[in-house]
Amino acid sequence: MFSLGNFLTLSTFGESHGPAYGGIITNFPAGLEVNFQDVQHQLDRRKPGQSALVTQRKESDTVQFLSGIFNGITTGTPIGFTVENENQKSKDYEHLAEAYRPSHADFTYDQKFGIRDYRGGGKSSARETVNWVVAGSLAKQLLPGNVEFRAYVSSVGEIFCKEPYSELDLDLIDSNEVRCPEQETATRMIRKIKEIKKEGNTIGGTITCVIRNLPAGIGEPVFGKLQGELAKAMMNINAAKGFEYGSGFAGARMTGREHNDLFNEDFSTQTNYSGGIQGGISNGMDVYFTVAFKPVATILQKQDSINMVGNRVILEGKGRHDACVLPRAVPIVENLAAFVVADLFLVNKIRRI
Amino acid sequence: MFSLGNFLTLSTFGESHGPAYGGIITNFPAGLEVNFQDVQHQLDRRKPGQSALVTQRKESDTVQFLSGIFNGITTGTPIGFTVENENQKSKDYEHLAEAYRPSHADFTYDQKFGIRDYRGGGKSSARETVNWVVAGSLAKQLLPGNVEFRAYVSSVGEIFCKEPYSELDLDLIDSNEVRCPEQETATRMIRKIKEIKKEGNTIGGTITCVIRNLPAGIGEPVFGKLQGELAKAMMNINAAKGFEYGSGFAGARMTGREHNDLFNEDFSTQTNYSGGIQGGISNGMDVYFTVAFKPVATILQKQDSINMVGNRVILEGKGRHDACVLPRAVPIVENLAAFVVADLFLVNKIRRI
Amino acid sequence: MFSLGNFLTLSTFGESHGPAYGGIITNFPAGLEVNFQDVQHQLDRRKPGQSALVTQRKESDTVQFLSGIFNGITTGTPIGFTVENENQKSKDYEHLAEAYRPSHADFTYDQKFGIRDYRGGGKSSARETVNWVVAGSLAKQLLPGNVEFRAYVSSVGEIFCKEPYSELDLDLIDSNEVRCPEQETATRMIRKIKEIKKEGNTIGGTITCVIRNLPAGIGEPVFGKLQGELAKAMMNINAAKGFEYGSGFAGARMTGREHNDLFNEDFSTQTNYSGGIQGGISNGMDVYFTVAFKPVATILQKQDSINMVGNRVILEGKGRHDACVLPRAVPIVENLAAFVVADLFLVNKIRRI
Amino acid sequence: MFSLGNFLTLSTFGESHGPAYGGIITNFPAGLEVNFQDVQHQLDRRKPGQSALVTQRKESDTVQFLSGIFNGITTGTPIGFTVENENQKSKDYEHLAEAYRPSHADFTYDQKFGIRDYRGGGKSSARETVNWVVAGSLAKQLLPGNVEFRAYVSSVGEIFCKEPYSELDLDLIDSNEVRCPEQETATRMIRKIKEIKKEGNTIGGTITCVIRNLPAGIGEPVFGKLQGELAKAMMNINAAKGFEYGSGFAGARMTGREHNDLFNEDFSTQTNYSGGIQGGISNGMDVYFTVAFKPVATILQKQDSINMVGNRVILEGKGRHDACVLPRAVPIVENLAAFVVADLFLVNKIRRI
Repeated sequence: MFSLGNFLTLSTFGESHGPAYGGIITNFPAGLEVNFQDVQHQLDRRKPGQSALVTQRKESDTVQFLSGIFNGITTGTPIGFTVENENQKSKDYEHLAEAYRPSHADFTYDQKFGIRDYRGGGKSSARETVNWVVAGSLAKQLLPGNVEFRAYVSSVGEIFCKEPYSELDLDLIDSNEVRCPEQETATRMIRKIKEIKKEGNTIGGTITCVIRNLPAGIGEPVFGKLQGELAKAMMNINAAKGFEYGSGFAGARMTGREHNDLFNEDFSTQTNYSGGIQGGISNGMDVYFTVAFKPVATILQKQDSINMVGNRVILEGKGRHDACVLPRAVPIVENLAAFVVADLFLVNKIRRI
Repeated sequence: MFSLGNFLTLSTFGESHGPAYGGIITNFPAGLEVNFQDVQHQLDRRKPGQSALVTQRKESDTVQFLSGIFNGITTGTPIGFTVENENQKSKDYEHLAEAYRPSHADFTYDQKFGIRDYRGGGKSSARETVNWVVAGSLAKQLLPGNVEFRAYVSSVGEIFCKEPYSELDLDLIDSNEVRCPEQETATRMIRKIKEIKKEGNTIGGTITCVIRNLPAGIGEPVFGKLQGELAKAMMNINAAKGFEYGSGFAGARMTGREHNDLFNEDFSTQTNYSGGIQGGISNGMDVYFTVAFKPVATILQKQDSINMVGNRVILEGKGRHDACVLPRAVPIVENLAAFVVADLFLVNKIRRI
Repeated sequence: MFSLGNFLTLSTFGESHGPAYGGIITNFPAGLEVNFQDVQHQLDRRKPGQSALVTQRKESDTVQFLSGIFNGITTGTPIGFTVENENQKSKDYEHLAEAYRPSHADFTYDQKFGIRDYRGGGKSSARETVNWVVAGSLAKQLLPGNVEFRAYVSSVGEIFCKEPYSELDLDLIDSNEVRCPEQETATRMIRKIKEIKKEGNTIGGTITCVIRNLPAGIGEPVFGKLQGELAKAMMNINAAKGFEYGSGFAGARMTGREHNDLFNEDFSTQTNYSGGIQGGISNGMDVYFTVAFKPVATILQKQDSINMVGNRVILEGKGRHDACVLPRAVPIVENLAAFVVADLFLVNKIRRI
Repeated sequence: MFSLGNFLTLSTFGESHGPAYGGIITNFPAGLEVNFQDVQHQLDRRKPGQSALVTQRKESDTVQFLSGIFNGITTGTPIGFTVENENQKSKDYEHLAEAYRPSHADFTYDQKFGIRDYRGGGKSSARETVNWVVAGSLAKQLLPGNVEFRAYVSSVGEIFCKEPYSELDLDLIDSNEVRCPEQETATRMIRKIKEIKKEGNTIGGTITCVIRNLPAGIGEPVFGKLQGELAKAMMNINAAKGFEYGSGFAGARMTGREHNDLFNEDFSTQTNYSGGIQGGISNGMDVYFTVAFKPVATILQKQDSINMVGNRVILEGKGRHDACVLPRAVPIVENLAAFVVADLFLVNKIRRI
């Protein structure tokens, strides 16, 4: 309960200012020769301090596997791992012990639990996503080698990619610091984020993710639909505000005649408004979806707020924050999607006799 | 696994052309005096044949409770129920036994299971939602009496409500057949749907749902966030293509300075871009979200398609279908949301010593 | 939560005096041609009124499948089923509405739920096991054809089988009404039960179950051990008081030198104190276990008791009860074991890449 | 799936020769001031090297909490913990890399996973129970202060306690190194174990556990019965071969007239064959159960065996093993029972409106 996945599951722990994050992956099949380089590569993509756009906190973000892998091969038993926290500056937060920051989880955690770890958000910190990148990058290795997860920043504020994913060269995603493969748009996004950062402000945006070469048959009827599992996972990312797949919200404006994806004789479809999913199950076409992210709530400007007893205080963000989380969220989206898909992929293997 | 809910769970069964739908609700607390009228009222709101806008299939849609309720009071043991299918016209579908309808689940079910119940979609039929309305309308009765779930049609095709939910009189939702409380907009929507229906076409739209008076503290950290649970549930509705809450996709265009919800001294917030949820947990403000629905795939026009061996066929929808599912989806969204919230509400009762 | 099985799951409902029992099996693989005869055969073996030894209640106990099977073949979608209650004599129980019967669940249900369905135990009735026989007899069909589940009555009161299971002809189990394959012992058991019945008393006993030809590899490390899953399932049977497998309690008296099962060169073992399970996982030898059942609590003699307000009452069991449940529990044990094993068998298919 | 508990859950990882064991407890309520001393005390009771009776391996067995506790108080978020392995002597096992030890999990893990961590059993090591002691000793703190878990060694080989638990002074359990409160019997047990140890042999036995002052109402109908949850947990302990509660196997020899527990006017019962549980739910009387443990499979004598290719080898146990696990299993049984009970206790809080 309250873990990620249905058969292949991830339980996690960790707080921004505790000693470590970590997790346990259960039911991971035996016999996989782990590509540790890719796991670390994905962690490096998520890591703070990669560019001028994101927080300058330095963390090495190296994962230690504590079980479930013997001589580099998975043994089928639970995979335990930790990622240590370094460079915790609890002091940065002590002035916040009594204040509720606007649009953070300070107030709601306090209401719910009657106790609050005020050090940088504690459990509500987005550093939790480091666990998901570890688990997702491992899970991805369970899928056929040609299945690809490609996420990119499709908008920052009012700046949108001009072309849909199908017209973009997704090999260019990591070629710039904003992770948008449309170069000219990337340049404008980068300029915008730097400007926003200088103001001590933050900005939102969207990430689009494409899953290529996914076999047909992935996803379960009724309560385990592929889009439902993806939506849940994505909406659990800290700043996520929306999810759509295939035609998405634009599809709601269309008629059936326009929206129906007619078949080719090889069972592919002429259009792909369905986003590669019909009745909750993949149909072999590209699966694609977009996640909306709100602007980071911590701004380096003065803000009015209240404290725990309802008195007015003035906050001014300190510390090292992201002006725009989107570039760092790209590997989170990709690897989280990989975990979701790997779980349903395993399940699908036993859905026929 | 693959049921709805975490502690309070719903398992379901049923196919469009089988004898009955039904479900089992587990862990429903003892001692509730059931309001059967409201359950039936919600079923009636979902029922086909209510107006000229929707399918003219006639089904009485009455629920039979088989256990878990004694002398009108819940006993704490599993609640089993069935809703019989009437008026099944399997014959309507026999011409489809070999064909794959575009943008339906015919092809994917066949790919996944190697077997296909071709009678009207079988398990993939939206009639499954009748189970959710039963379970959700019961679950809602577990919540404090002042918690309200109000969904309405906020757009049909290109026709959108002009005002946000907070400016509308939600008591007017059921006052017209399209279930849009903005009367002039409703009139335009109705006209549009009738026009589309005459063409044998279908049209999509959006439903917005507001949850009022929800106490703070509902939702779980990390993998049980309120928005994640709502998103999963909503994306499992048959034609859903997108989900957003609070500022949603529009929030992705904003800056942190604009988007942050500043506190009042009574811990309410001056704005509510957060959609009543911070860090996955309700904060006491209105929770609101919007779901995008694609146009129904079954159109009453000729369409090219292929059959199971990849040969070209021409399809022409017969039978009684909805030109626009939105009006009937309103009670589905409301009651499904109620189930999700009731589950997390129960859990929240034991999250502090 | 609180369902049977991990991947293949069974949720159930039903009360002794409600309209029907039933259940939902999820994740049942597609493509199985169902042997309905065997399902009914197992139900018939469990049915009351089969012989003079057991209750004379007459129930036809026929199952109606409501979904998940199309043209006799499983479709992969949830299998819903009901078994109607007939011959409910609620009147038999009205005198009990206020009394707590000794060693029944009357008092505990009342304490827990604050409400009590007094009609024959309500949810605590052993009639619930009808659901398990349906589900287990279906699940068994997922296993390789040579896997056999053979349970028999190994003791009644002080009368024990003289030989271990391995020396008995298990084809004789159903050849007598007590379901003990050791004929001379069976005769003594039958005589004993008739004697006890005449007194209006009841008697306990044990059932031993053997699973033959189970492949090695079934069961999961740590929290999904085969013996743990079997123990849980068996201890949920209404009158079960104990479970042991392999050497069981006798093994606790032995030394390691005696108890260790030495290997043959074909990986079979010379002895089988392990009961076919090592480290929670089947090793290819016979799996065998024994379940202890207490005597039925309802006796047709006068007993002192108290009512809900703590006043003394005198009870005298009426109605049609079993003097010894053991014969009817044989198919329950077999089919419940089959469900447990089928669940772990499916899981085991995806535990290696 | 395959974790411990239903609402309060424990996931674990760790192998005997990996760097650490550990686990994650989810849904632990906020606001508990943790008694760390008791956690460590329970770990110390389980620790090897405590007496001449058990293995002389030295491990400090200290737990490190990594999250979920802030300033000594639980925060409601996942509790992550690790217990480091020290003193791993993998070398001790290298000669076993190719051999299958009799009555160990070597063969079955190899059959299941196709890969085997041969270092001392890897995942199948009983060192896993260190995780359960941590989690159970924390969970126990959620229960009312007067609820007691008292386990003791009730037999070693053929030496049995003469009196039932109710006649013993359970405060004497830890007063001797075998943890049997019947002093004269303890002396005989100790002598026996020393004798067995000198021979390089091992011996089995039983542990009886009493839960006192448990409120009525704990346990769930049908698939969550208290005895089923206890049985599953206990049968997952590494050498467990049997479980019985209340009258247990002896109850199977009795008649209903003898076995029924008649009520006193205060709702207590005159006898307690029910073992404090009726219909799966606690009734306020003592809950008691007994677990049978086989003798440890590793003996320090020569044994015939085979290797992975089916060739004969001669094994001779080396290293530091327990001649009798029973004394060290006492805290495992107690704390595991506490976890099971705490889970159902929390659940019971939300089973009535």
